[in-house]
Amino acid sequence: MPTPQARAGTSSRSGEGRTRWSFASADALCLASLRTRFRGTPVRLELWDGTTCDLSDTPPVATIRFHDRAALVGLVLRPILGFGDAYTAGRIDVRGDLVEMLEAVNRAWPARPPARNRRRGLSARLGLPVSARDNIHHHYDLGNDFYRLWLDEDMVYTCAYFETPDATLEQAQRAKMDYVCRKLRLKPGDRVIEAGCGWGALALHMAREFGVTVRAYNISREQLAFARDRAEREGLADRVSFIDDDYRSIEGACDVFVSVGMLEHVGPSHYAALGRVIDRVLDRDHGRGLLHFIGRNAPAPFNPWISRHIFPGAYAPALSEVCSGVFQPWPLSIVDVENLRLHYARTLAHWLARFERHAADVRAMFDDRFVRMWRLYLASAEAGFASGDTQLFQVTFARSLDNALPLTRRDLYSSNGHGQL
Amino acid sequence: MPTPQARAGTSSRSGEGRTRWSFASADALCLASLRTRFRGTPVRLELWDGTTCDLSDTPPVATIRFHDRAALVGLVLRPILGFGDAYTAGRIDVRGDLVEMLEAVNRAWPARPPARNRRRGLSARLGLPVSARDNIHHHYDLGNDFYRLWLDEDMVYTCAYFETPDATLEQAQRAKMDYVCRKLRLKPGDRVIEAGCGWGALALHMAREFGVTVRAYNISREQLAFARDRAEREGLADRVSFIDDDYRSIEGACDVFVSVGMLEHVGPSHYAALGRVIDRVLDRDHGRGLLHFIGRNAPAPFNPWISRHIFPGAYAPALSEVCSGVFQPWPLSIVDVENLRLHYARTLAHWLARFERHAADVRAMFDDRFVRMWRLYLASAEAGFASGDTQLFQVTFARSLDNALPLTRRDLYSSNGHGQL
Repeated sequence: MPTPQARAGTSSRSGEGRTRWSFASADALCLASLRTRFRGTPVRLELWDGTTCDLSDTPPVATIRFHDRAALVGLVLRPILGFGDAYTAGRIDVRGDLVEMLEAVNRAWPARPPARNRRRGLSARLGLPVSARDNIHHHYDLGNDFYRLWLDEDMVYTCAYFETPDATLEQAQRAKMDYVCRKLRLKPGDRVIEAGCGWGALALHMAREFGVTVRAYNISREQLAFARDRAEREGLADRVSFIDDDYRSIEGACDVFVSVGMLEHVGPSHYAALGRVIDRVLDRDHGRGLLHFIGRNAPAPFNPWISRHIFPGAYAPALSEVCSGVFQPWPLSIVDVENLRLHYARTLAHWLARFERHAADVRAMFDDRFVRMWRLYLASAEAGFASGDTQLFQVTFARSLDNALPLTRRDLYSSNGHGQL
Repeated sequence: MPTPQARAGTSSRSGEGRTRWSFASADALCLASLRTRFRGTPVRLELWDGTTCDLSDTPPVATIRFHDRAALVGLVLRPILGFGDAYTAGRIDVRGDLVEMLEAVNRAWPARPPARNRRRGLSARLGLPVSARDNIHHHYDLGNDFYRLWLDEDMVYTCAYFETPDATLEQAQRAKMDYVCRKLRLKPGDRVIEAGCGWGALALHMAREFGVTVRAYNISREQLAFARDRAEREGLADRVSFIDDDYRSIEGACDVFVSVGMLEHVGPSHYAALGRVIDRVLDRDHGRGLLHFIGRNAPAPFNPWISRHIFPGAYAPALSEVCSGVFQPWPLSIVDVENLRLHYARTLAHWLARFERHAADVRAMFDDRFVRMWRLYLASAEAGFASGDTQLFQVTFARSLDNALPLTRRDLYSSNGHGQL
């Protein structure tokens, strides 16, 4: 394969004039730089003038098409932010499968030395503190109508659990809720606290299917309104309270503490506060709980583009950060950790497919820019899980002294569906 | 209940003379100090002169009987070392169940502020380096005849896995080996490296039952001789090599890396070296592995008496220390963590019962002091797991990029015994 320089030189359509040639040289330099940086990634780059450059000697899985020079330079200067911004603005297109392309980049990129991953990124330091409500509002209050277009009918916006590869999204989300309940060993009458309850599906499921009472906390107003309305309609309002407050304000006592998909919004500097809350409210003898969160193999900055445009203040921790930050200071034992990253890749594939089916509706609600931004977010999240760059951890914990837990995990996989114990 | 002072005053048999009274006052002070320190522990203390002092208002589960003043003072000055040394020397006896007594102490004691647990003890800093062979020799080369008296017939000296509470030790050890193999997703032809192989039971089991080839490392000569002999007898010597070397010298390539009960002998300062070895030898695409080790909820010093007399250089890490020390620097994902502490409590109960049945044989091999020392070691280990003070973690890991792992853990619990996949 010719070098990018050579191709840029030969296939550039405008061969005359100093200025044009120097632009062409600059373009070639940009391509060479990208080729060095992303060496081995099976992706083709294609410029506005037809110039192409393959990043690898293997056949490309997709082509990134740059519509102008600014998009190319942006990508060279800040690959993740530059790509995201230019894609959102429609100045970059991807021919071929977007997820496959992003996955290929992820798979080629972990070659970077892991030591560089250890710094905690700015996104982590931004944390959750003062702007917690703003951050949550930014994402979760985009409108229930929007999320309804592409989430399952229960409006569950966290990783599902596919008991079989061909389960539907609806089945997988219900299986996830059941699985979490089984891991929590819920029994009728248990008092449950849920931190970060989304649209309330899990809280209602626990009360309805396992006979527990739930106090569920959230700071997204749109989600709370939806959840309360649903509790009323289902006749569960006496057993499930949806409380408009932060996890730090959680009060009272519970047998079970559960949080699915909230930890990503709790900055690591607040893990101790979360642990303190758990220890304060959890029954001293038989208290148990589960945290479900997006994680990383090692401490690493959150994707800066997603952090800027999709999830302000988000951070996906390494397991060690959660163990030492949340649990270690308290008399709590980690009982079980499961990595469900392949389930999140599947979940996101479902979401992305539904999103694409409703792209015209989303465009009508917002604009084309929004559609492109969310497509890229869902696709890059799927690629992150599929390529092993991000993980999904379910951590089950219990009071250190509790010997009443089942001896083995076999009952989690009993075939009678619910598995109420 | 009268205060210890009052009881010491009234029930002391020697009421005359200044000197005697001052001894009695000193004894009373010691009892008062112990009562403050271990407040709420349902244990009675009884002195050589019949003086008694209950540490709690609830009925005692056992009585600690001091035969002389030195034993009492030793316990006040250094509770763990003092108790261990005096019990070994026969200057302290326990009336009632030794395990129950130790468990009661553990259960009452975690009331100490967890912050104090965070310092890493001297035992951890002692680490494994130069004296690794001496440390291992000290414990594992006590003689195969000794261990044969109270281990299962396969000579497995790590936590068993009780699929049902009434499984025999033999069944539970075989179930553990099978369970580890299932977690490792062994398939015929896999190349396995085992670090720290004991008497070789797991290595031979993997080769015999799952058709893999194994290179198993150990630095205990007695164990290696036994393992090699068994491999010959079972006709497995061509598929299982037992290698007299340290984990740091492991070379070659493997599909699976497994280590059961060795990490406790690797000081935390060497976790990075262990991780480097794993990364170096493990297949880049489909490599996977398992570490099985005694752990703690938070970094804490190892029991100083066990560290001094039973396991020199041993350290039981918190999960966070293993995650960050061993795994995080490398392209490895944690797939599954299971806490099996209740299984270790059961295993130790079996070992202790068998040990007691053979106490006379052990006494004949060594002496009474040795019998008492090992009884206390086994009992306190059982109490540690039963009271939630120590944990047993099985951590399953895999290459970050590997998407070929099963979607769920259900197959680990398929009822067809072996579960070869």
